[in-house]
Amino acid sequence: MARNDTMAQTGLDDAAEAPYRRFNIPANGFRNYWNPILPAAEVGRKPKPVRLLNEDIVLFRDAGKLFALEDRCPHRGMKLSLGSCDYAGSGTISCPYHGWTFDGASGQLVAALMDGPDSPIVRKVAVKSYPVREHAGLIWVFVGDMAPVPLEDDLPEFIADQVTFFSIVRYCDYKANWRWLVDNWPHDHHGPYVHRTSPELLFQPMLPFGMTVTTTPLPNDKGIAVDGVNGITSGDYAGLGTFPRNNWWRCMTPAGRGKTEGFETSAARRRYGIQHQFETRLPGMVVVGRQSGEYCLVQWATPIDETTTRCFNINNWRRHGTLRGLYDRAHYYLWRGWAHDGTFSGQDKRMVEGLVPGPERLSKTDAGVIAWRKYAGAHARRAPEQDSLRHRGAA
Amino acid sequence: MARNDTMAQTGLDDAAEAPYRRFNIPANGFRNYWNPILPAAEVGRKPKPVRLLNEDIVLFRDAGKLFALEDRCPHRGMKLSLGSCDYAGSGTISCPYHGWTFDGASGQLVAALMDGPDSPIVRKVAVKSYPVREHAGLIWVFVGDMAPVPLEDDLPEFIADQVTFFSIVRYCDYKANWRWLVDNWPHDHHGPYVHRTSPELLFQPMLPFGMTVTTTPLPNDKGIAVDGVNGITSGDYAGLGTFPRNNWWRCMTPAGRGKTEGFETSAARRRYGIQHQFETRLPGMVVVGRQSGEYCLVQWATPIDETTTRCFNINNWRRHGTLRGLYDRAHYYLWRGWAHDGTFSGQDKRMVEGLVPGPERLSKTDAGVIAWRKYAGAHARRAPEQDSLRHRGAA
Amino acid sequence: MARNDTMAQTGLDDAAEAPYRRFNIPANGFRNYWNPILPAAEVGRKPKPVRLLNEDIVLFRDAGKLFALEDRCPHRGMKLSLGSCDYAGSGTISCPYHGWTFDGASGQLVAALMDGPDSPIVRKVAVKSYPVREHAGLIWVFVGDMAPVPLEDDLPEFIADQVTFFSIVRYCDYKANWRWLVDNWPHDHHGPYVHRTSPELLFQPMLPFGMTVTTTPLPNDKGIAVDGVNGITSGDYAGLGTFPRNNWWRCMTPAGRGKTEGFETSAARRRYGIQHQFETRLPGMVVVGRQSGEYCLVQWATPIDETTTRCFNINNWRRHGTLRGLYDRAHYYLWRGWAHDGTFSGQDKRMVEGLVPGPERLSKTDAGVIAWRKYAGAHARRAPEQDSLRHRGAA
Repeated sequence: MARNDTMAQTGLDDAAEAPYRRFNIPANGFRNYWNPILPAAEVGRKPKPVRLLNEDIVLFRDAGKLFALEDRCPHRGMKLSLGSCDYAGSGTISCPYHGWTFDGASGQLVAALMDGPDSPIVRKVAVKSYPVREHAGLIWVFVGDMAPVPLEDDLPEFIADQVTFFSIVRYCDYKANWRWLVDNWPHDHHGPYVHRTSPELLFQPMLPFGMTVTTTPLPNDKGIAVDGVNGITSGDYAGLGTFPRNNWWRCMTPAGRGKTEGFETSAARRRYGIQHQFETRLPGMVVVGRQSGEYCLVQWATPIDETTTRCFNINNWRRHGTLRGLYDRAHYYLWRGWAHDGTFSGQDKRMVEGLVPGPERLSKTDAGVIAWRKYAGAHARRAPEQDSLRHRGAA
Repeated sequence: MARNDTMAQTGLDDAAEAPYRRFNIPANGFRNYWNPILPAAEVGRKPKPVRLLNEDIVLFRDAGKLFALEDRCPHRGMKLSLGSCDYAGSGTISCPYHGWTFDGASGQLVAALMDGPDSPIVRKVAVKSYPVREHAGLIWVFVGDMAPVPLEDDLPEFIADQVTFFSIVRYCDYKANWRWLVDNWPHDHHGPYVHRTSPELLFQPMLPFGMTVTTTPLPNDKGIAVDGVNGITSGDYAGLGTFPRNNWWRCMTPAGRGKTEGFETSAARRRYGIQHQFETRLPGMVVVGRQSGEYCLVQWATPIDETTTRCFNINNWRRHGTLRGLYDRAHYYLWRGWAHDGTFSGQDKRMVEGLVPGPERLSKTDAGVIAWRKYAGAHARRAPEQDSLRHRGAA
Repeated sequence: MARNDTMAQTGLDDAAEAPYRRFNIPANGFRNYWNPILPAAEVGRKPKPVRLLNEDIVLFRDAGKLFALEDRCPHRGMKLSLGSCDYAGSGTISCPYHGWTFDGASGQLVAALMDGPDSPIVRKVAVKSYPVREHAGLIWVFVGDMAPVPLEDDLPEFIADQVTFFSIVRYCDYKANWRWLVDNWPHDHHGPYVHRTSPELLFQPMLPFGMTVTTTPLPNDKGIAVDGVNGITSGDYAGLGTFPRNNWWRCMTPAGRGKTEGFETSAARRRYGIQHQFETRLPGMVVVGRQSGEYCLVQWATPIDETTTRCFNINNWRRHGTLRGLYDRAHYYLWRGWAHDGTFSGQDKRMVEGLVPGPERLSKTDAGVIAWRKYAGAHARRAPEQDSLRHRGAA
């Protein structure tokens, strides 16, 4: 059941859609991309239902392979995810209702158990089969209307190259449209304000604000790099006073995520050739580097449906031998997992779930948001046919 | 508030309605039939609200009689079921808001207490009164647009004749449309697959599958008898293997519900003249006999509204004196009530509630489903006016 | 975001709206009035979200002043109620997302913290600011499309004049449209029936019923006085019997709320010049006096949205020195708070929440309801432009 990515289907009302419709950014997510949907450890032999870009999908494993099928038997409409993999090694799943058995790879009906072995309907029916991969501890599914691109095409290099890097992932579901999460990410200046009490930035100066945001397209339609310059960390506001207030305890120098100035002379660029510290990429993620170049955080907004988004925090460390790896893991589980993926991201979650969709009044600090929306709508991968339709429509 | 039985009102979308619309099977149930709604023991003097075919009804008893009225006072709209029967012996119910008092039999307003004894509005207003009966431990209500038929016309003889039979009933609400339950019943072959692990069929061979299903209309527009022939109990499926697997423990001969072959020479036919073992009947029930002819199960799908169905398991035993009756009861409470009405029907419930309405792809084993839908839509009782409209429409 | 008060927006269906549409009584409440929304003690420095006439509003206090703003930041749509008052004494609230800071009095944007101190957007944007007052222990908000009238214009004199009276308030949210509450109040005769078992009226005769209800417009479009005459306290109903039944325990003479006859010679009129015992007033309240003139209850239905109403019981006593005041308070907390505001009003709540909207069949006892609807629709305050539109529409 392919669904097109026009706006017509959305349940969100006109005012709520307005900021996205003009840029052609669909409510249920950009199709024709790989998205992570679950940690690999959460899917076993027992079929597992998931929703992705508003499509219901069943995931299962058999004989060491992973499969993703449309979660509805075409016979009478039963959820395949209530069924089971009765024939180990065959890579099939059987519908719990009448035993229609589908090949996990092709989606073809290979047996209709209750029709008997000589049923003529076999191989005349199929469910939609989704390209699916396991990589970096995650399960990735391609929902689209075209042949899938190689998975690596859609992964940041920090995730793609698991020889050079290793990853630890945490995820959380937001009761919010995916676009509201992604709008957070092209330096929209919520950071210094929302996270000013974050433990990860404790004792550090404020993140700079009032910056001039510039964006640079990345090669190959990957997304945009976002840079902010000329920021301040304190200001006097007429009639109000200073912001931030009670700043005396911010006595450290910037470090870690807090260190955002001077990336051009950083080890990340000198030693590893990393060009930008902040990139917002298609289909909807942010890549946040460190000036050391040894670590990188990717936050990925996977659209579940119009009102739910699964946000993955993918932490990536450069591999430097066993001891350093153990240290990095310990540091994550003892500190960063709580300080960032729990607390810092929890601050974002409270914001994004508190949004009331409708008209907007954007300002200087939204330059990155506007650039992202324009870029994303124009550069998102589309199936060839859709793409030509789009261009005809625009002509 | 009579409501017609066209499809126009349904909240289910087009794709979900498609399998039923062409046969004219309404989402809220066939009108002009008796349906069971509650065990008699659950209704006393205190008014009890129920919903049936999407109509809200209040049931109450007074002076040994049972009444069913529309559950909304026409005065200002209060639910009569929040009221009480203030005048014992009068067969009336009083609205809790201003004391409008309605005759349970006719629905006529017999007093408007707060208007005083000489209120001119008395007998000028009425609520809809529903034909209602108590029989076989159940309360039966006729929702329709015509004079009710005799209750016995709509009851299987096993239930109608409580001199020859006695009944024990259990019910359960399904979060599913009533049609999905009934589609289960004309030998749709879910039985051998869904119930293959049922305790009631333990140690027995598989129920046969891959059968050729034939259906025979019953006299008087009652429904269809459904027979399956040429079934198998095991098969070899190319590329998969045998079904069922691990069959070694199925060492008993078929018995009870499991015994489905050879009905034509059974005691049921020879001694009692019962013609069929499986019948699917209007408005939406299945009659499942035993070859002994001593017992019969009726499962009845009572439509509550589009998304809820009350499924009654009505167990019926032929009366053979006190001791045999005690044994049959003990057998039910100690074994069959759990094994069938709990576990076996629980397997059905999981299926029916797991359906995702939409397009279907029927196969050989759905011959009974198709026959049932055709039959039901064409033979269902309709009010005279509706019926003529239907024929004109078809002309 | 001003919203007009036509019927077009209502989610209630046609049949449910019919009784109100012809009188032009809007589902979300009459605009251009003051309504109480919360006890003053429930709002402090921490922003508090409320809904009123289907508008989302944030309340907060700073430097001893109270403010009410639209609860949505125009920037990116965040709920301001998730923010905080960062600059004590400035009377501002800051959006939690990017620090847009609004003046509580004017709604003007006075700083966009993250844009820096010299942001050009400052004072070019505003949120809607609502007139708000604290009086008699309550917070009052004016939702409308015109300059607010003085608060006192909309208050019964018992509440307005806190030198002569003092008030104790309790409130409760009803899952019901506000109009259903108010329809209760112009002597619709639910009182004698619904409250016949109320502890407040214990041992007293029934409140009279079967009365002829007359209504008198109050000066200045305030509402209508409602009087009932020629009532009975007992009647014989053909075929049923006497109402009320088992009356022997009603041995006291009428007192308190139960004393409704002879108001014209009461102390209330003689000593204090109070003209009526029962008045139903705009925008939706009832004023229930006592014949002593020393006490008065105001019940106020504040529309939250189409399906929720906040009902305030505002108890008002004439001040007579400290000791008498202590006695009145003790009497309330030990008896009347439970007997009336809890139990008596709880009986009303059960009724109003049990209504099924739809067509009505009004009778003699609804003379007050009809008079109220006619009066309210015709006399409700409207913004000048709306008012002229209404008259043109009628011409």
